[in-house]
Amino acid sequence: MDTARFRALHHGDQPLLLPNVWDYASAAALAARGFPALGTTSLGVAAAVGEPDATGATRDDTLRLAERLSRLPVLLTVDIEGGFSDRPEEVAAFGARLRDTGVVGINVEDGRPDDTLAPVDHHYDVVAAVKERVPELFVNARTDVYWLAAGARPTPDEAIARASAYVRAGADGVFVPGLPDDAVAAMVAAVPAPLNVLYRPGGPTYRDLAAFGVRRISYGSLLFRAALQAAVAAAVDVAEGRPAAPDAPSYADVQHLIMGGPADA
Amino acid sequence: MDTARFRALHHGDQPLLLPNVWDYASAAALAARGFPALGTTSLGVAAAVGEPDATGATRDDTLRLAERLSRLPVLLTVDIEGGFSDRPEEVAAFGARLRDTGVVGINVEDGRPDDTLAPVDHHYDVVAAVKERVPELFVNARTDVYWLAAGARPTPDEAIARASAYVRAGADGVFVPGLPDDAVAAMVAAVPAPLNVLYRPGGPTYRDLAAFGVRRISYGSLLFRAALQAAVAAAVDVAEGRPAAPDAPSYADVQHLIMGGPADA
Repeated sequence: MDTARFRALHHGDQPLLLPNVWDYASAAALAARGFPALGTTSLGVAAAVGEPDATGATRDDTLRLAERLSRLPVLLTVDIEGGFSDRPEEVAAFGARLRDTGVVGINVEDGRPDDTLAPVDHHYDVVAAVKERVPELFVNARTDVYWLAAGARPTPDEAIARASAYVRAGADGVFVPGLPDDAVAAMVAAVPAPLNVLYRPGGPTYRDLAAFGVRRISYGSLLFRAALQAAVAAAVDVAEGRPAAPDAPSYADVQHLIMGGPADA
Repeated sequence: MDTARFRALHHGDQPLLLPNVWDYASAAALAARGFPALGTTSLGVAAAVGEPDATGATRDDTLRLAERLSRLPVLLTVDIEGGFSDRPEEVAAFGARLRDTGVVGINVEDGRPDDTLAPVDHHYDVVAAVKERVPELFVNARTDVYWLAAGARPTPDEAIARASAYVRAGADGVFVPGLPDDAVAAMVAAVPAPLNVLYRPGGPTYRDLAAFGVRRISYGSLLFRAALQAAVAAAVDVAEGRPAAPDAPSYADVQHLIMGGPADA
């Protein structure tokens, strides 16, 4: 089953490297490049429709994207921000709807739209509700302890305590964006579930993170931001008479990617 | 009025250089970069939702995108493929709906989903119906004589005849993608409306095209394809241990772009 295959990718020889996508084309292109699993980037999904990230505004867009991506021969895990609801049973119901589209996992975060952290007990209940309703879904519980620290310096103990609570609630993995490099080993040692970190340009490489014991490495919004930058740069190149986007795929390549499916191309 | 401003951009000292966008983020980023007007790319809009281009599948997505982009302080012209209908009055009604969102222009093509050309009289009727219903809309009539030649070598006369007919129907401009470089001057001389051509990497520069008398230069799907390529390249860079996307905007930059609006940033 797909959910078992996805789970196994967290326990292989090497960590799962998980590109994050925001639309059908980005997913098709990355699947065609051979990545076995993809996540979504909530920033990218939100920005594509003109909504801010992490404010719960993109529930329907997220579901629609999952439905579209179900055509692709790739494992998909979906970022649902804080769950698009304060009520654990509603988050669980949304997880079930995603599962029905073929999604194998979700990310759900304890950061809230007002940039505060949800109480640990609340997020425990969210994770537990999803796992009770959709046990086969790989729930990657994210704690925003570091991202929302806003000047204060969070202690590694706080992050470990939250991650551990979410694992007790049934989380299949934990995601700690912003985890300092020197806190990775302690997190791996303390939390009995695969640790997911965010790749950071200029930070540890994939190989370094593997050596630390990290089991999953996400791109977050990096690929979306790289795409946006490339579009603007190519536009300016043309305006200023420089060669633009020499390596871009052709029109026919893109049509084939969309119509022909990626993996069998 | 915005429609007058858009029209004037076709008659300035320099041709209008028109980047084509496919989602809110790409539009916001290009508007923020200072481009006064944007078009949409039907390939990009379609690929983003997993549909093939030029098959009439994205009418609703195109309208939704236009609605979203109406928030941006930029002039917008929308590619409506063949009009999403065989009936001129339905194309006109769609043009009116777009106008109601604030759109200042449309592109409508005589190529059909089965890769044949619509009869010239039919496309004449489409252009005339739109102009009758929505006179203020800048109608850029596209002929796919060259794109759909499929091996046969179309004569410049055929393209000129079609473009001229569409201008007689009321078109405000004509768009001839695939127009050979050596046929540009004759087209400019023969057709009494601003000529729009597609920028082609490795072909004439913006400056060259301006010298030929071209009044509008579109990117078509180039920026979308550049974005897709950059996303995949960055993903592979991380996998292979190379620095990825060093010039990408930050997460905060993108949130600001979406929330803060571009032009006043």
